[in-house]
Amino acid sequence: QWLCQSIDTMVAGVHFPATALPGDIAWRALAAAASDLAAMGARPLNFLLALSLPESNEAWLGQFAQGLAQAAEHFAIGLIGGDTTRGPLTVTIHVNGSVAPQHALRRDAAQIGDRVLVSGTLGDAGAALSLLDKPFATCSPAERYLLQRYYRPEPRLALGQALAGKANAALDISDGLLADAGHIASASGVALAFELDNLPLSPALLSLAGPRAQQYALTAGDDYELLLTMSETQWQQFKHVPEAALLTPVGWVRAGQGVSISKGGQALELPTQRGFQHFD
Amino acid sequence: QWLCQSIDTMVAGVHFPATALPGDIAWRALAAAASDLAAMGARPLNFLLALSLPESNEAWLGQFAQGLAQAAEHFAIGLIGGDTTRGPLTVTIHVNGSVAPQHALRRDAAQIGDRVLVSGTLGDAGAALSLLDKPFATCSPAERYLLQRYYRPEPRLALGQALAGKANAALDISDGLLADAGHIASASGVALAFELDNLPLSPALLSLAGPRAQQYALTAGDDYELLLTMSETQWQQFKHVPEAALLTPVGWVRAGQGVSISKGGQALELPTQRGFQHFD
Repeated sequence: QWLCQSIDTMVAGVHFPATALPGDIAWRALAAAASDLAAMGARPLNFLLALSLPESNEAWLGQFAQGLAQAAEHFAIGLIGGDTTRGPLTVTIHVNGSVAPQHALRRDAAQIGDRVLVSGTLGDAGAALSLLDKPFATCSPAERYLLQRYYRPEPRLALGQALAGKANAALDISDGLLADAGHIASASGVALAFELDNLPLSPALLSLAGPRAQQYALTAGDDYELLLTMSETQWQQFKHVPEAALLTPVGWVRAGQGVSISKGGQALELPTQRGFQHFD
Repeated sequence: QWLCQSIDTMVAGVHFPATALPGDIAWRALAAAASDLAAMGARPLNFLLALSLPESNEAWLGQFAQGLAQAAEHFAIGLIGGDTTRGPLTVTIHVNGSVAPQHALRRDAAQIGDRVLVSGTLGDAGAALSLLDKPFATCSPAERYLLQRYYRPEPRLALGQALAGKANAALDISDGLLADAGHIASASGVALAFELDNLPLSPALLSLAGPRAQQYALTAGDDYELLLTMSETQWQQFKHVPEAALLTPVGWVRAGQGVSISKGGQALELPTQRGFQHFD
């Protein structure tokens, strides 16, 4: 087995509101790190936590620990160490996972002619951003669904492991579909072509965002869904395994470079804002 | 081989001045993390960096990268991945190392009758804290030596590897000698007795701190020296290996609990401030 490692930082006021529930902060931080294992097709082994806190607050820490324990149990990954320091609220998680040699999923191995697929639904967490300040008690069921998608993402660990050795390229969408598709396209030296009407959208997103739902799906990050490419032959077999129920075909890998979108056969102009920019 | 992992966070304004030289910040962060490998007796393999920065500043990043590369080459450890985020200046480093099975140094295995030894000299970095705001150009050679000890610590990697399987207990002094000795004492269920006049002090510390030099040696952290215990039989052999030149015998492991200090056979009262407190 190969050892896969990934480290991920979430900063209060940047990646989550400082006033978010401590249990949600913990879940989301561990989910984001575990999602990197899913994207590699790796099985979770264990993790380390480096936590910076402005002050020692037992109530806050208790809730944080509870959310972390819930997530760790749900993702089947155990805490083995860490570091606690005084500082601005920041959660860094390092995950260890294992994958069969040569089976690790990469972003540089998409092949011309591959299907492009995504897991789950897209844009939900991005649409939740405008709801983060809204009192939860006043939220509609659809709004609560989007907030759940933002705060309690489900890293696609079982799907990732099923894809190991079968998908050609994969990553987890954290910067937005177009931006992350661009990463696969440039690393693999190919083009990714999407059909707009095929993007999987949740009923909650459609009901709340209306005509802007597709825009969220294309450019918003934070869903931690998988984007992958797979040969057509492989897909015709893979689509019968249980984990494939999460997948939607959304396009094709073509010769060329970059990312394109069409709607009913007509090429569309790409949105200017391609995804999350780490620095303005 | 066993895989050893450790994660360490340094926060601007807490663990270093925000205005410190970027190369020094990088060196010190990697040294602190690598020191955890030294304390386990592990050989460095590689590391991951999670860096939070308030803004993208190419000049700052270039100097940071240069200091990190210097330290990585000096410690023979390579960068294999990481994460960069926007946020308050924070440097988190995760190190991987390897050690022969059963040979990893621990803090819970000190034996009654062991020698207590420390590497290098103690208190230098602690005494440097009062110099951090002083313009470097106006610093004396002794002051510059202490600042070098603070900003460019030397994790005792070769010594740690030589000690693996030979020392009974070890850790790296990051919270201060008394505080860290207390960790070994409580984890091992023994007492550690120090002879004050045996503490190794640098000429620079003695010349600048005068009568307060021993206080720095007892309570100041940040030196990243090793504190260890070893059977007398083992020490009589080990003291002839080259790495042993760094070690000074400073006391004994006794039956009982806690930490004590004597001077010429007279028990001394312990200072109230026992070391670095992470939260007030």
